[in-house]
Amino acid sequence: MRAKISTQHRPHRHETAAPAPNPPSTGPLTAEELELARRNHSAPLEALRWPLTPPGLHYTVVHFDIPYLDPETWRLRIHGAVEHPLELTLSDLRRRPRRTAAVTLECAGNGRGRLEPRPPSIPWDTGAVGTAEWTGTPLAPILEEAGLAAEAVDLVFTGADRGVQAGLEQDYARSLTADEAMDEHVLLAYEMGGQPLPPQHGFPLRLLVPGWYGMASVKWLTSIEVLDRPAHTFQNERTYRYSQGAEDPGEPVTRMRVRSLLVPPGLPDFFTRRRSLDAGPIMLRGRAWSGEGPVVRVEVAIDGVWTDAHVEPPTGKHAWQEFSVVWVAVPGPHTLASRATDAAGRVQPLEQAWTYQGMGNNAVQEMTVEVVA
Amino acid sequence: MRAKISTQHRPHRHETAAPAPNPPSTGPLTAEELELARRNHSAPLEALRWPLTPPGLHYTVVHFDIPYLDPETWRLRIHGAVEHPLELTLSDLRRRPRRTAAVTLECAGNGRGRLEPRPPSIPWDTGAVGTAEWTGTPLAPILEEAGLAAEAVDLVFTGADRGVQAGLEQDYARSLTADEAMDEHVLLAYEMGGQPLPPQHGFPLRLLVPGWYGMASVKWLTSIEVLDRPAHTFQNERTYRYSQGAEDPGEPVTRMRVRSLLVPPGLPDFFTRRRSLDAGPIMLRGRAWSGEGPVVRVEVAIDGVWTDAHVEPPTGKHAWQEFSVVWVAVPGPHTLASRATDAAGRVQPLEQAWTYQGMGNNAVQEMTVEVVA
Repeated sequence: MRAKISTQHRPHRHETAAPAPNPPSTGPLTAEELELARRNHSAPLEALRWPLTPPGLHYTVVHFDIPYLDPETWRLRIHGAVEHPLELTLSDLRRRPRRTAAVTLECAGNGRGRLEPRPPSIPWDTGAVGTAEWTGTPLAPILEEAGLAAEAVDLVFTGADRGVQAGLEQDYARSLTADEAMDEHVLLAYEMGGQPLPPQHGFPLRLLVPGWYGMASVKWLTSIEVLDRPAHTFQNERTYRYSQGAEDPGEPVTRMRVRSLLVPPGLPDFFTRRRSLDAGPIMLRGRAWSGEGPVVRVEVAIDGVWTDAHVEPPTGKHAWQEFSVVWVAVPGPHTLASRATDAAGRVQPLEQAWTYQGMGNNAVQEMTVEVVA
Repeated sequence: MRAKISTQHRPHRHETAAPAPNPPSTGPLTAEELELARRNHSAPLEALRWPLTPPGLHYTVVHFDIPYLDPETWRLRIHGAVEHPLELTLSDLRRRPRRTAAVTLECAGNGRGRLEPRPPSIPWDTGAVGTAEWTGTPLAPILEEAGLAAEAVDLVFTGADRGVQAGLEQDYARSLTADEAMDEHVLLAYEMGGQPLPPQHGFPLRLLVPGWYGMASVKWLTSIEVLDRPAHTFQNERTYRYSQGAEDPGEPVTRMRVRSLLVPPGLPDFFTRRRSLDAGPIMLRGRAWSGEGPVVRVEVAIDGVWTDAHVEPPTGKHAWQEFSVVWVAVPGPHTLASRATDAAGRVQPLEQAWTYQGMGNNAVQEMTVEVVA
């Protein structure tokens, strides 16, 4: 028997007293983690070479299955504490004011696979990040038209992907506060890179919450319910938490922490992915981002010696920035690293603070290369 | 130091006496295999729901790094045993006769992760398959214009992805016989799904050899060299072999073996991916294909009892076919399986014959589901 939560009609009544997930492990990778790595696409780091992640290289997370939806019968319901409940078709949304924004999204669990012990979920290395031009219509004016009640507290965004997590059957659903939802940058997006959303990115419509980790940008969106009281969704209260154990409620995961990643230089080995490159001057490049504002500084370290990189201005308020520095590579093994600082003064840590769910891992990435004469 | 093979100018002089790869393992999954699973995208099986694999869900294999190529300076050289060597731009190719074909591609190593012991490479489960509409220009007329020598034996197709495999630095290169290369269905493809090839699928140009496993369809194609003697490329002679050990040359991997896969029914658990569904009638669907001709029969088994499924005609000579059957699901655990037969009379085996590199794994897939009242 499955425990069912009716999320279609009462997403705010999610049961949150779920069984604890498997504990973190120091053992070998399990078959379940491998399958999650296969299903949830990681961007190979050379994809950072492109300012906009090419189609199909953007990371994906799908909690359950990719829904197979008919855009003709699909509807978005806006209901609850509103004066005028709405039921919108895709055409309705496409007729509304159109806005395109380049937005960097990162999975909150990116880097989880590097933790010890390892939380049992998608074992990301560092590739759960991407930047795309998303096109849609701003959410705030729609909420205004629906007549958001003065007493509105939280909004619950529910997607069509349905499955079982921690023993509970559910639709994927996340809440935002009314203030967060009314932010002018929040979009209802129906295109990615100028094309209809691919199914795995939320076709026909997804929420897009720039600056936040990806879990907030609910895909396959079917319902926005306005509540006059705090929401209690499984995916806000049981997952996506900075916590230290199964019994620790911890703090919610929200905006992306400042981070930078290097494009791996040189040539890889097929199996080991060990890299080698020829001696001489080489341009090291990478991308840096933060959900707290623009990146103002990136340092690159060669064998622990830090130097400032050139940082390009952002191409959009919520898009990553390119950095580059010339390195005159001399023969031998070398360790490369990069460290970004954002306008809020946050700096990437050198070591990763462990959390029970493996969230917000933004420690400095290190990579080793062998330079040959 | 790296052993280098000059493949830019003499791809036929590939050194093939390379160190043996790591032996197959019965141990836990290694970090290297996990990283290969992250980099080389698998299609989640629900992607089989679509007759054409949506953008970004088609499987990818990248032996080294995805090259970052400038289409303005990119050229395709056709040289060697030809009367008129050619150097073609992308515009030259786009001005030639245009053909679009729906073609199913599968990685020859699909299913490798299920073998015991496990060959050390990409640990696919079953998702290394996809179907796309590829657009390009037929290769044969270009070879005719170049004036293929009467003594032409093999053609070597070289891509721009460069790295180290089994200790040898190389560009990815594969050969076909002159007869295989002159097959009317072989394309030089520059579009996938009506869009320019995504970088990971070979931008700006790839070879497309319908009916063959994916390794033959060389991506990032830069050179076609015509030889008046047999080619000896690393990727024909050292990899993609049906063999029983490091010293066994075995047989070359060529066309796709007959295979079928089911769309997993019901709802998944996030972590375990265990599936459950409600009792009652349900349409089971899947896709079947063969490189040896159309699929003429698909059987579906419920708990070991086989029944014939309805099989749709192919939408293209080299595209997979949908099959479906109604199942009246009763409560309890059940095992589902499907088995295809092609026009050449080949049938999927019930058990997988082991090979040293884990190639051509087309055994019947089984999946278990829990039906709830």
